[in-house]
Amino acid sequence: MKKILVLIPAEEPHKKKLEAAAPGCEFIYSSTQDATPEMVQEANVIIGLPKAADIQASGNLELLQLSSAGADSYIKPGVLGEKTILTNATGAYGKAVAEHAFALTMMLIKKLYLYRDEQKKRSWTDHGTVTSLSNATVVVVGLGDIGTTYARLVKAMGATVIGVKRRASIPPSCVDEIVLTEDLDQVLPRADIVMSVLPGTAETTHLFTLERFKMMKDSAYFVNVGRGSVVASDVLYQALSEHLITAAGVDVTDPEPLPADSPLWALDNLVITPHVSGWYHLRETLEGIVDIAAGNLARLMAGEEPENIVDFATGYKK
Amino acid sequence: MKKILVLIPAEEPHKKKLEAAAPGCEFIYSSTQDATPEMVQEANVIIGLPKAADIQASGNLELLQLSSAGADSYIKPGVLGEKTILTNATGAYGKAVAEHAFALTMMLIKKLYLYRDEQKKRSWTDHGTVTSLSNATVVVVGLGDIGTTYARLVKAMGATVIGVKRRASIPPSCVDEIVLTEDLDQVLPRADIVMSVLPGTAETTHLFTLERFKMMKDSAYFVNVGRGSVVASDVLYQALSEHLITAAGVDVTDPEPLPADSPLWALDNLVITPHVSGWYHLRETLEGIVDIAAGNLARLMAGEEPENIVDFATGYKK
Repeated sequence: MKKILVLIPAEEPHKKKLEAAAPGCEFIYSSTQDATPEMVQEANVIIGLPKAADIQASGNLELLQLSSAGADSYIKPGVLGEKTILTNATGAYGKAVAEHAFALTMMLIKKLYLYRDEQKKRSWTDHGTVTSLSNATVVVVGLGDIGTTYARLVKAMGATVIGVKRRASIPPSCVDEIVLTEDLDQVLPRADIVMSVLPGTAETTHLFTLERFKMMKDSAYFVNVGRGSVVASDVLYQALSEHLITAAGVDVTDPEPLPADSPLWALDNLVITPHVSGWYHLRETLEGIVDIAAGNLARLMAGEEPENIVDFATGYKK
Repeated sequence: MKKILVLIPAEEPHKKKLEAAAPGCEFIYSSTQDATPEMVQEANVIIGLPKAADIQASGNLELLQLSSAGADSYIKPGVLGEKTILTNATGAYGKAVAEHAFALTMMLIKKLYLYRDEQKKRSWTDHGTVTSLSNATVVVVGLGDIGTTYARLVKAMGATVIGVKRRASIPPSCVDEIVLTEDLDQVLPRADIVMSVLPGTAETTHLFTLERFKMMKDSAYFVNVGRGSVVASDVLYQALSEHLITAAGVDVTDPEPLPADSPLWALDNLVITPHVSGWYHLRETLEGIVDIAAGNLARLMAGEEPENIVDFATGYKK
């Protein structure tokens, strides 16, 4: 009898769906915080985000179904044992994260962050002209589920969309042009908005160098809802304080939480949200995660290969 | 030879277009601030927003082509003479104002105003769940050019859109349902977002009473980009401080500028922008105004009736 440890905030309908996918298994419901190392060690399947240090390459663990799209903590050497299959929740976050990135984009181009600051000073002050997505070229770096959903939103506002991907593919209808990651520097100078939704991997670490910010228009906006590690905090600080670009909005920082003494907090032209675009902040996200987890449980039971398997080399879904 | 006083910030291509529409006329370029009462008195046509007090029912003035959609200051008794035709710039502002209202809407539902406030305190604090326009019912009060453009944007995000209009009409494809203004109270309780873009007229003054805020869901958001006079400041203050609704975003206040001692400034759940959604904050707006003005100049010269004539009873385009 397999032990299935569920660390997502499952409600009754979710529990029913999961249990129906693996009949006869023992389900233990807990949370990341409350799960003990023993519970993690004994589990044959974990759904959610156990503390990586508790796993210790457990030989019992057949499937770790993450509730996140990012897998950074679990692809490090020594965390998972040889026989553990690692799957992520790619597909569940598209809407929530893309809409958050889109809201940040609108807030930036309409200067609403400046007006919020003026409001705190009781100041009725006009900050001048704004731009429209309808005349904008938006470069979406990372064109998976989230990036494509974001592309669809900015395209609906009239933007020209350039997608940046690791592998060549035919653009979906919401994307005008696709370039490979190695050709990023060719499209950065054309961007009015650069939106990054890259995961945190060796390849993406510090991808946005100071040189790359210098390539961007000084009127450009940068949005990051992927992982904070794609840009070093001191580089982001320099890019914004020296006005290499106009402003940025980030839901992810390096490190997280951002330390209270980070100079980033005080930048007028940086909008920071505390990694809230995903998780369960949007109801549909949890539903999506349960669906993915239930599907993979059923596949495991049937001896089939689960979906959304993470490639340890890239940190992405294979 | 007619004297045409132009008070919009016309650049060379704009001047060419205007002058081509009324050959042989004398064009005087100035601004609202710089135009003297004499210049206003002598003009046969004014394009822009002269100081209302300077007009004094001038008998010379044949056409006042406003550069705004709202006509509040000019429809008051005694401002314009009997023979002056008053036209507005309805149609030029749709994109700019609708996009501003849309950005305010996204900022509210994704709680970005709360995160901006946390940022100022260097605080990495999660404000919990958010909602999506894809599950929202949006009531658009005032379904002219701006309201319809806004409706199209929220519809693209998946919202259900209810339009509120003075007169019955067949809904455009971006609107699911239309009700008459007198039936506003039937749809307010269904709204997740109420967006008002009503002009300032006798009919619309203080339309949003405390009773109407009480009818709304306590989870509702209110956005106002029309005229501040549709809601009394003390009513808005009470609705927000007593959490009759969750939050509001307003580009217009009553009065404007909002006095520094207004208690509205300090409300955490109110986002204030200083009437910047329209004017010339978006480049395309000025182009649109010039096109409307040139068209009406040509019609005046040809003895035809201008377009966008304002109905003094309603303050709207007839």
